[in-house]
Amino acid sequence: MEQMKQYDVAIIGSGPAGISAALNLKIRNKSFVIFGQENLSNKLELAPKIDNYLGFPGISGKELTNNFKKHIDDIGIKITYEKVTNVYSMGSFFAVVCNDKSYKVDAVILATGVNYGKLLQGEEKLVGRGVSYCATCDGPLYKGKEVAVVGYNQASLEEVDYLKGVASKVYFVPMFKGQFSLGDNVEVIHSKIKSIEGENSFEKIIFEDKELTVSGLFILRDSVAPDVLMPGLKSADGHIEVNRNLETNIKGAFAAGDCIGKPYGYIKSAGEGQIASLNAVSYLYEKAISNKNK
Amino acid sequence: MEQMKQYDVAIIGSGPAGISAALNLKIRNKSFVIFGQENLSNKLELAPKIDNYLGFPGISGKELTNNFKKHIDDIGIKITYEKVTNVYSMGSFFAVVCNDKSYKVDAVILATGVNYGKLLQGEEKLVGRGVSYCATCDGPLYKGKEVAVVGYNQASLEEVDYLKGVASKVYFVPMFKGQFSLGDNVEVIHSKIKSIEGENSFEKIIFEDKELTVSGLFILRDSVAPDVLMPGLKSADGHIEVNRNLETNIKGAFAAGDCIGKPYGYIKSAGEGQIASLNAVSYLYEKAISNKNK
Ligand SMILES: Cc1cc2nc3c(=O)[nH]c(=O)nc-3n(C[C@H](O)[C@H](O)[C@H](O)COP(=O)(O)OP(=O)(O)OC[C@H]3O[C@@H](n4cnc5c(N)ncnc54)[C@H](O)[C@@H]3O)c2cc1C
Ligand SMILES: Cc1cc2nc3c(=O)[nH]c(=O)nc-3n(C[C@H](O)[C@H](O)[C@H](O)COP(=O)(O)OP(=O)(O)OC[C@H]3O[C@@H](n4cnc5c(N)ncnc54)[C@H](O)[C@@H]3O)c2cc1C
Repeated sequence: MEQMKQYDVAIIGSGPAGISAALNLKIRNKSFVIFGQENLSNKLELAPKIDNYLGFPGISGKELTNNFKKHIDDIGIKITYEKVTNVYSMGSFFAVVCNDKSYKVDAVILATGVNYGKLLQGEEKLVGRGVSYCATCDGPLYKGKEVAVVGYNQASLEEVDYLKGVASKVYFVPMFKGQFSLGDNVEVIHSKIKSIEGENSFEKIIFEDKELTVSGLFILRDSVAPDVLMPGLKSADGHIEVNRNLETNIKGAFAAGDCIGKPYGYIKSAGEGQIASLNAVSYLYEKAISNKNK
Repeated sequence: MEQMKQYDVAIIGSGPAGISAALNLKIRNKSFVIFGQENLSNKLELAPKIDNYLGFPGISGKELTNNFKKHIDDIGIKITYEKVTNVYSMGSFFAVVCNDKSYKVDAVILATGVNYGKLLQGEEKLVGRGVSYCATCDGPLYKGKEVAVVGYNQASLEEVDYLKGVASKVYFVPMFKGQFSLGDNVEVIHSKIKSIEGENSFEKIIFEDKELTVSGLFILRDSVAPDVLMPGLKSADGHIEVNRNLETNIKGAFAAGDCIGKPYGYIKSAGEGQIASLNAVSYLYEKAISNKNK
């Protein structure tokens, strides 16, 4: 693992919540890293017509994405195109882990959005026991073995591409539409998953019409359940619990956007990004003062 | 008083919070009235350069105001240019009062912003006892008498213009810069107010260098203290108390924007307008169902 990079704040997610938080941190001269994807957010890019983002009547998601990109370009913000796999609270700081890199930060802002889809039946019980959310992290465990990938988005194809070089065979179960030609040792399965099963660790996927027994299962969605991402984080009904200052139960960890609850919306998320980031700035200030007084 | 107009919702305030709420109510096909001013918000119009309204890098307040105006025009929202003087909770509905008109609504969204200035010393005690926030409402009480106006904004000049036709003399104390030529029976006082005094009702203004005894005092700011506007509303430190759904302590009354607390900000306020309005929509829906079941 290379030397840990250090920042005041890490923002996890590049949707409206995350980038609005980034703008405010930039203005307040904080050092930060923001993790996300090149198109910022699928939920943003794919919207055909948006009527309620104040200032842009009837804009398309693509245009709004471009305006957001121009804004962060102009102000000098660069997104780090990596998936955060874990955030660990280490007492006086946080360790943010993406694949083989890790970052040390004083505060985090979780702006991961939500998955509209439900967890697969049996998923929760088997995560970390043969069920993984991160191909780069756990792929090497399955060298020469057979694995399955349940992919919810285009990005999962890249992971399949990586895994087929490691595993002996990859079964790919796409949860989105498309034509796939992924290589010799990749088999695409078009069938509905009923559940995933295993006694102490993952054993097989039960489909409507068949079963598939493989060594490991990768489930690749846009975002990970919050308490899986950050152990110890309090959540309810899949949403991170926060107070009016958008502080989570973990000191120094803030959250904003869809991930903290309904109503889901662009400007709601952007507004909460502003709140979370400015409260993070206050937190850093108080932390610096109390360190000085020690 | 003319026949009360009826709407699903009244929005009090036309800053980012109020108009964002209006957009969402419009999209959800609710009937509503939104009260405010032609330039939407002084705090919006006067900002020289705004860096953190996501989507508009380095925009001026004037331009952003124009974009907001275009948005509400496009979607067919008209602002009612009146000052709401009181909102009364009547149990199953609200009465919203502006000067001589009143409106009956099922829900209200308070988006009044805040006054950065403090209350004058003695003001709280004397409101409604010779100290008024509304010239049109209380002006007629001072026919042929002398009154004073403490004005915090351009709009207060219009009120002075009205009052000078009612009162025998108007003393105008501007709290903002400008050149004033307001008419024969208007005297402009440029001096700092120390306090306002009176035993049971207002008697005089104490300036640094003199005292002024008049029959009535009008204090005209952009917005009124929330609990003065809406009796029974819970507030703390000048901000309306709300929960995460932006519900106030009064059922059916929601609040958004600066008036519910810091950090103050445009997109924070717009985001909260979306939250408050969509929760108001849910409230109306549940109210309709429970009425049906009665
Ligand atoms: C088709 C569609 C139309 C919509 N139309 C509207 C509309 O008209 N008006 C409206 O107000 N709302 C609309 N919405 C809702 C809106 O999309 C969401 O409320 C909004 O995008 C939420 O913003 P966010 O920043 O919280 O999260 P998201 O936009 O979901 O962004 C989160 C980002 O974080 C990234 N991320 C997550 N986890 C990680 C991690 N571990 N590491 C790195 N990056 C990570 C994700 O990949 C994603 O890019 C629509 C949604 C959809 C799907
Ligand atoms: C000079 C300046 C620069 C700023 N720069 C920034 C910036 O760069 N970025 C940022 O994010 N924020 C900035 N702010 C803060 C921002 O202006 C506020 O946070 C924002 O305007 C709050 O929006 P709001 O909708 O809650 O209230 P407001 O914008 O204050 O609007 C409230 C409106 O409601 C009306 N109203 C109030 N009471 C009544 C009533 N009883 N009846 C009818 N109408 C009523 C008022 O007249 C007003 O028009 C700045 C503020 C100032 C003063």
